[in-house]
Amino acid sequence: MNSTNVKAFGTTAPEADLKQLNIIRRDVTAKDVEIEILFCGVCHSDLHTARNEWGGTIYPNVPGHEIVGRILKVGSGVSKFKIGDLAGVGCLVDSCRECESCKEGLEQFCEKGNTQTYNGHEKQLNQQTFGGYSERVVVNEDFVLRIPKELDLAATAPLLCAGITTYSPLRHWNVGPGTKVGIVGIGGLGHMGVKIAKAMGAYVVVITTSAAKVTDAKRLGADEVILSKDAEQMKKNSGTLHFILDCVSAQHDINAYIKLLKRDGALALVGAPELPLPVAAFSLISGRKSFAGSLIGGIKETQEMLDFCGEHHITSDIEMINMQDINLAYDRLLKGDVKYRFVIDMASLKK
Amino acid sequence: MNSTNVKAFGTTAPEADLKQLNIIRRDVTAKDVEIEILFCGVCHSDLHTARNEWGGTIYPNVPGHEIVGRILKVGSGVSKFKIGDLAGVGCLVDSCRECESCKEGLEQFCEKGNTQTYNGHEKQLNQQTFGGYSERVVVNEDFVLRIPKELDLAATAPLLCAGITTYSPLRHWNVGPGTKVGIVGIGGLGHMGVKIAKAMGAYVVVITTSAAKVTDAKRLGADEVILSKDAEQMKKNSGTLHFILDCVSAQHDINAYIKLLKRDGALALVGAPELPLPVAAFSLISGRKSFAGSLIGGIKETQEMLDFCGEHHITSDIEMINMQDINLAYDRLLKGDVKYRFVIDMASLKK
Repeated sequence: MNSTNVKAFGTTAPEADLKQLNIIRRDVTAKDVEIEILFCGVCHSDLHTARNEWGGTIYPNVPGHEIVGRILKVGSGVSKFKIGDLAGVGCLVDSCRECESCKEGLEQFCEKGNTQTYNGHEKQLNQQTFGGYSERVVVNEDFVLRIPKELDLAATAPLLCAGITTYSPLRHWNVGPGTKVGIVGIGGLGHMGVKIAKAMGAYVVVITTSAAKVTDAKRLGADEVILSKDAEQMKKNSGTLHFILDCVSAQHDINAYIKLLKRDGALALVGAPELPLPVAAFSLISGRKSFAGSLIGGIKETQEMLDFCGEHHITSDIEMINMQDINLAYDRLLKGDVKYRFVIDMASLKK
Repeated sequence: MNSTNVKAFGTTAPEADLKQLNIIRRDVTAKDVEIEILFCGVCHSDLHTARNEWGGTIYPNVPGHEIVGRILKVGSGVSKFKIGDLAGVGCLVDSCRECESCKEGLEQFCEKGNTQTYNGHEKQLNQQTFGGYSERVVVNEDFVLRIPKELDLAATAPLLCAGITTYSPLRHWNVGPGTKVGIVGIGGLGHMGVKIAKAMGAYVVVITTSAAKVTDAKRLGADEVILSKDAEQMKKNSGTLHFILDCVSAQHDINAYIKLLKRDGALALVGAPELPLPVAAFSLISGRKSFAGSLIGGIKETQEMLDFCGEHHITSDIEMINMQDINLAYDRLLKGDVKYRFVIDMASLKK
């Protein structure tokens, strides 16, 4: 298979800083498009993978799965895109397409194992997949998203992971007019959750440990803010929420949040705390409540989310950085010092 | 309010054995029926409450919430029952009837707090409620169930708690033809879960720690049995079940069972382990799975369950005891030495 060298930014070891390196991209095959990457969001998963915090990282590793850019080339069988189109790529670049989950458009749950955008396995070149911290990417058109023209392109990049990760559970658990939804944790994911839930017509309650975030939560669209450290506020709001989207990746007392749910309510985790979370049986039994999880979203739903965001003028709150500043950005990410997503201006990689 | 003395069996302290004592029952008011108790099932909750293991037990305490008997008296406004009818009483004898849950027929989740059959608060006499280990009980007809005539009366008693506790979640999570349901723990609850799930048309998989229970699980109706201590069997069955009814009250590794669920599957706890259960975030996230709880059932659904059991000839497997043997029965219950429910022949109390 023909391939070309592409400039990228990545790591060669868990403790190493990210630096410029060259990777190989396949030439477009019949159903592929080649995308010039214009912007790439910085997700906490990038850092976890670069540093091998989840195990299994293959080096060199090039992170990045919040990719937006412009189509440079199309394969002979491509029908959905033409040269010059805006395009996006999220967390997945392939799947088996044959299992029950794939057939239902839920490629994130592909039973044979999907191909993740980075640190997956690219069968065409028999190498690890490389992500969006790079000049270009080649992806089968079925895993490429159309980007609404009306949105700021840089601020659209984070929709490809943070957007769909919050949109999918909000849809799955039927959030909309008449529902009162809690969003726990206002960061990259949570701030998108607030905007999307609000646009879906829900009454949005932000639950945060930080009094400093109250004003910002309201600016993002929250109708109400509960300070989780204030026992009185937590008690007062007991049994009031239909659904809670829990965007916290740190350890936290899940029972305190489950108490806020109404009967038959569900709390869905989208962050992934490292250690198991202790759940009291009575927390669930006494109101037929559910503690659930959700994982990104399928391709069809990602397109639906992008179209929804286009219609409702929703993008991420971002801080733009150059590719060369990524190590500093990771340090700041660890401190929660970003409102609310770093996005890399990929033009900086050409310098 | 007029009242009469009734012979009962109960405790006066957490460490005390149960013994014969007298309690007061109100005379029937307009909407009440008085029931001569013929049989009363022995639920693990009886023991927990008698020994104050959940805290809050008011002494003297008379347990028993799996009550069947015959109507002795009806109040002037009673329309659903007449003298001589068979009747049942489960875990609840009253509720506010005005909250959202009550209006939906989910009195078990009454938002103002329902009245439990024992250790609740009887407002008419301003005393604790006394359960079915007694000669007679007086209950508002709205909380009294019709008993199908075709069933063995003694073996029907456990349906009032063990039956509805398993029926309700099986219905709520849409178990039926085409679903593959796991039942964890074959005891008082679990053995009812197997029978009911089978009658609903599901493919029933029992998951047990005990090789000794395989034959019995199949006799009860299981299509398949998985030994949870056999890692190979557990692995082979990973991702195969639509729903799991978890009837285990002891501590257990919930993540091992969640692995058996298909995508979008739910595991519902009906047992109540004392300590919180650690749940790994990835267990839930990687298949959009839910860890849930369920609590008995409402009155309407309890009637539906009894009618369903009548139609499908389902009763509990029981061992009959005399009232005087209750302390020995509690000891055996603690060892799991009962197949699968003790039922007290209340005629013995008259001796």
